Amino acid sequence: MVEAGAAFAAMNAIGLVAFAAVGALKGSDAGLDLFGVSVLGFLTALGGGTVRDLLVGRVPTSLQTNLEVLLAAAGITLAVMLVQRVDVDENASRSGGSDLMESPAVLLPDAIGLAAFAATGAAVGIEAGLSPFGVVVTATLTGVGGGSLSDLLLARIPAVLREDFYATPAVVGGAVVPPAIALGLPLGATTLLSAGVVLGLRLAAIRYGWRLPTV
Amino acid sequence: MVEAGAAFAAMNAIGLVAFAAVGALKGSDAGLDLFGVSVLGFLTALGGGTVRDLLVGRVPTSLQTNLEVLLAAAGITLAVMLVQRVDVDENASRSGGSDLMESPAVLLPDAIGLAAFAATGAAVGIEAGLSPFGVVVTATLTGVGGGSLSDLLLARIPAVLREDFYATPAVVGGAVVPPAIALGLPLGATTLLSAGVVLGLRLAAIRYGWRLPTV
Amino acid sequence: MVEAGAAFAAMNAIGLVAFAAVGALKGSDAGLDLFGVSVLGFLTALGGGTVRDLLVGRVPTSLQTNLEVLLAAAGITLAVMLVQRVDVDENASRSGGSDLMESPAVLLPDAIGLAAFAATGAAVGIEAGLSPFGVVVTATLTGVGGGSLSDLLLARIPAVLREDFYATPAVVGGAVVPPAIALGLPLGATTLLSAGVVLGLRLAAIRYGWRLPTV
Repeated sequence: MVEAGAAFAAMNAIGLVAFAAVGALKGSDAGLDLFGVSVLGFLTALGGGTVRDLLVGRVPTSLQTNLEVLLAAAGITLAVMLVQRVDVDENASRSGGSDLMESPAVLLPDAIGLAAFAATGAAVGIEAGLSPFGVVVTATLTGVGGGSLSDLLLARIPAVLREDFYATPAVVGGAVVPPAIALGLPLGATTLLSAGVVLGLRLAAIRYGWRLPTV
Repeated sequence: MVEAGAAFAAMNAIGLVAFAAVGALKGSDAGLDLFGVSVLGFLTALGGGTVRDLLVGRVPTSLQTNLEVLLAAAGITLAVMLVQRVDVDENASRSGGSDLMESPAVLLPDAIGLAAFAATGAAVGIEAGLSPFGVVVTATLTGVGGGSLSDLLLARIPAVLREDFYATPAVVGGAVVPPAIALGLPLGATTLLSAGVVLGLRLAAIRYGWRLPTV
Repeated sequence: MVEAGAAFAAMNAIGLVAFAAVGALKGSDAGLDLFGVSVLGFLTALGGGTVRDLLVGRVPTSLQTNLEVLLAAAGITLAVMLVQRVDVDENASRSGGSDLMESPAVLLPDAIGLAAFAATGAAVGIEAGLSPFGVVVTATLTGVGGGSLSDLLLARIPAVLREDFYATPAVVGGAVVPPAIALGLPLGATTLLSAGVVLGLRLAAIRYGWRLPTV
């Protein structure tokens, strides 16, 4: 289990960098200034976990420890460097970010982060004694809350509400956790199972272009 | 008082179903996918109480118990069925929800829910030892917070800020509570009084088309 | 230090009135009704501190005490009176607020409020044992969170993310606090230092038209 724990920590770190980079790219595309780009990067990486911590009555770890913040700062720095490189190469000032966001170099680490975040959120919900619905909420919020808050700051309908098969893997990854715990699976193994479910569903959705129906 | 308690629980249940249905209809009208429609339904029904619980330092009951969630799910299911029925009947794919939302079959249970939610919010504020202003805030947020959060997710100015006499009944229903408690009225009776004030004002506003002035 | 404390309390009071007035003017400009204008006034004045209190696990003082609320109400009243005076004088119904917001009579007390709020936020972060990043977040949120929430309610990208040198003074004012505390400066003196840094930077930014670069 030590190796599994290390693998999970690595997934989480990849996710923090990827989410922060995606948030910063979105902010840059929207023409925000350096403060705004930084806010979107930090919020995309740390916002979901922060809201989840508020819901279960904890002071957010993002405000108490340094590792998450440093990883997010690395993602923001990476995004700013990429945007300026693309700008120089292509002389196309505002389209660089959007193209990057559709590339496998972003989609894959983003999917890994979604899996680690959603599984972590489900585990926090279990530890807080929430109902199965509550566990699904903390899993989903941890996975997609930061990106949705960033969309809100850009006065946009959160992308996960409209299209794409992005939140659904987090919902399913949260939903498998309460039954697994009820069946006696330890929390560590359940968290890995949850992350595996999220990652598998998300990668399949990218590969096969899955979408949810509108009503 | 047992009967009064049962009546109040019934009002609350009606409100949860109605608010969830209204939220889901708004999401469907806005072209959201099934996940987005569900989020808007749950958020409209449970979001106001969740934010109120955060403000008074409680883990939200919506994440710990099942009854509220099941009632909200029933409202969402009802809305989805209604929209699909209307779509089939009228072959008008995106206007079904808006018409439904103006019908008495929605406006009346929605007003009942507003009354139950605002009165509950005021009682929670009193129990948490808030100031009179704080009690008005928890009453109003519980009543209109969920719908306003849904509007924000749709990147719209919350309807209650612009028009209609919808938040004002909740404000008044909250404002009567601290004086009633100060005068020695028990909390249970005060809550019923508050709900009655909200319901009376809201129904009168619908009947007579009341609006607040702009400034 | 008693005089310094009184000066700081005065700065905070000026900020509450100014922020509430700015929020109410924004709401009036956006055509909100009286409820909406009041919500924007209270939220601009009290919202940043309320979110900060949630983050550090406190029941918001804005819901427990009366002084802040009364000062915010005074600011809202002032704004409504000013708008109606301007409307009568100029017969230009919707441009009054925006002009007022650019006048020194608003910019100066607003800068004083930004300084007092950000310094207070940093002190709360220190008292809660947050990391240096956490202290910067509570300082910035307390300073610009209320105005940003108001922008969100108006379905606008928060102005501080896009332009102007407004959030940056709060960030810097927060960032000086952890090193000052580490160097042994008492919290009271550190708070005054922080407020001085914010006020100096903000006034210089207004005077010289500073802006952050976009990325």
